[in-house]
Amino acid sequence: VARKEAVKRAEASLPRRLGRAALVRAAGEAGLIRLIARWLSVQKRDPLLVKGIGDDCATIRIRGRQLLTADSLVEGVHFRREWTSAQDAGWKALAANVSDIAAAGGKPVAALVSLELPPETQIVWLKAFYSGLLSCTRRYGLSLVGGNVSAGPHLAAHIALVGEAPRRLIGRAGARPGDIVAVTGKLGGAVAGLQSLARGVRAGPAVKRHRHPEPSVRAGQVLGRYASAMTDISDGLARDAGHIAEESGVKVVIVPGAVPTFPGATVEMALGGGEEYELVATIPRRRFAAAVRAHSRIGIMLTGIGEVRRGRGVVLPGHPGPLPGFDHFGAG
Amino acid sequence: VARKEAVKRAEASLPRRLGRAALVRAAGEAGLIRLIARWLSVQKRDPLLVKGIGDDCATIRIRGRQLLTADSLVEGVHFRREWTSAQDAGWKALAANVSDIAAAGGKPVAALVSLELPPETQIVWLKAFYSGLLSCTRRYGLSLVGGNVSAGPHLAAHIALVGEAPRRLIGRAGARPGDIVAVTGKLGGAVAGLQSLARGVRAGPAVKRHRHPEPSVRAGQVLGRYASAMTDISDGLARDAGHIAEESGVKVVIVPGAVPTFPGATVEMALGGGEEYELVATIPRRRFAAAVRAHSRIGIMLTGIGEVRRGRGVVLPGHPGPLPGFDHFGAG
Repeated sequence: VARKEAVKRAEASLPRRLGRAALVRAAGEAGLIRLIARWLSVQKRDPLLVKGIGDDCATIRIRGRQLLTADSLVEGVHFRREWTSAQDAGWKALAANVSDIAAAGGKPVAALVSLELPPETQIVWLKAFYSGLLSCTRRYGLSLVGGNVSAGPHLAAHIALVGEAPRRLIGRAGARPGDIVAVTGKLGGAVAGLQSLARGVRAGPAVKRHRHPEPSVRAGQVLGRYASAMTDISDGLARDAGHIAEESGVKVVIVPGAVPTFPGATVEMALGGGEEYELVATIPRRRFAAAVRAHSRIGIMLTGIGEVRRGRGVVLPGHPGPLPGFDHFGAG
Repeated sequence: VARKEAVKRAEASLPRRLGRAALVRAAGEAGLIRLIARWLSVQKRDPLLVKGIGDDCATIRIRGRQLLTADSLVEGVHFRREWTSAQDAGWKALAANVSDIAAAGGKPVAALVSLELPPETQIVWLKAFYSGLLSCTRRYGLSLVGGNVSAGPHLAAHIALVGEAPRRLIGRAGARPGDIVAVTGKLGGAVAGLQSLARGVRAGPAVKRHRHPEPSVRAGQVLGRYASAMTDISDGLARDAGHIAEESGVKVVIVPGAVPTFPGATVEMALGGGEEYELVATIPRRRFAAAVRAHSRIGIMLTGIGEVRRGRGVVLPGHPGPLPGFDHFGAG
């Protein structure tokens, strides 16, 4: 009730006639925070949430161990307004974080959103962005519990997500020589979709994959019980497998022809394409068949694509040229 | 040991000859992440930290309830490189978050840093920025457990901080008519320091206060045991008291002449100046004397500056003009 009254008071104090074309500048910082609080007030009550918006801190109660991760969506770097709707941008901003929790085999619980906003942003754009964020919270059963807004030269959303850790912790270290390398799903769809958009193609499964990636939370919880090491495919399979190789102190061998490709994607795209949000894991050989069966029961394809050996780095037998992948700062 | 070897491998794989003038662009994204991991590896082992840098998520273990907060430091909005050293910028970026945990009476535990960096940032600047972050972690006993880097047109640090909640939760709602309004310390120093810098004065207590604000973590833990509502002074006393008034559904009366002013600050600065990181709280009348004594024992001044009444908003009897304060988007 106190919350409802606070929202009512907030609405009463908003500048009148903030029409479809109204800008963030017209709402002011306090008005903007009230608007966002109103948009977020539709969230279902989360039993793990003790206190949400309206205080200096949100308060949650996660028993056991907590997982923490942060990721960002920066205009001009991670998305362009011409190609990505506000709603899809909101979904993607949160999905990147959810995928990190999936990679740790956990359950996402509570997110904080820190925004930079040009004052000339349309409020209607921002509302659609929050609508995308909220559809991602509903899909993965988490709450958006707070955050921060600042003026800035471009739109950027920096999100931190707290999750519940699985009983058996799983990370990038732990791969052992002899383990099988496996991936969930089919790869290369996100980059194939981006290339379709660049050619003016605005529909199809690859475009959907690019616009609306689905983090593998359920798969992570199952795979985490079998794997010796695990990570999500956000920088591209070869690079992300490289993170496992580095943290585990092993060599990861991936057979390019064994990597399942998304419809419309090439092997190169499957090896190098980022933002896939599938998982790559290493699994002790004797547990691999059981892992495949467990995934089959939840309708997820788990494919062996190589093996772990003594040594360092990632090798792609038969693949020409350097490791495919993406670097934000343009270096190797 | 695994961690030490990982750091060694990381150093070995860094581009050679990254001299004092080297740019972030030269390190590349992977090199940059390795550099940051190396800078952070000096941190003392935190008993609450289960796993840190090098995985998709950090893992911590906080018993009871967890506090979550996020804040940002954006170049050109919150600081300018001419007036703020890289080290002070790092300190301030984290201090803003620590102050939110202080406002909730909690203990800061683990921070995530999500950065936007122009590729032409000097690595030596970034290292000093992390040195500032780390000095703040040491001062307040928390760990920097992970984060994210992205290219961007300007430098921005978005930090999320997780803390341990006190047994008795305290927030902005809860002020009751009849309560005493009180503040810790002396106010207006940060804005007085900023104005000194603008006039070319580069030293003195106010400049230090602006450059190196000290969040009131200890005071928050003590004050939280007495207060009915509490928040930190980040937007300016009048505005932050307004947050208590709004969330509690009461009127807050502040007597301008009763507000303790920092040396060199005017009453106007004390009422409107942001980034003070002192606390404003409402305290039931019968507990006020005990609260003052408890603060006196830890060397902190607690001053009664007004009272809570039925109604809404903040009033400053005898103060001319609108409520002083700062709005990021330029509106009231």
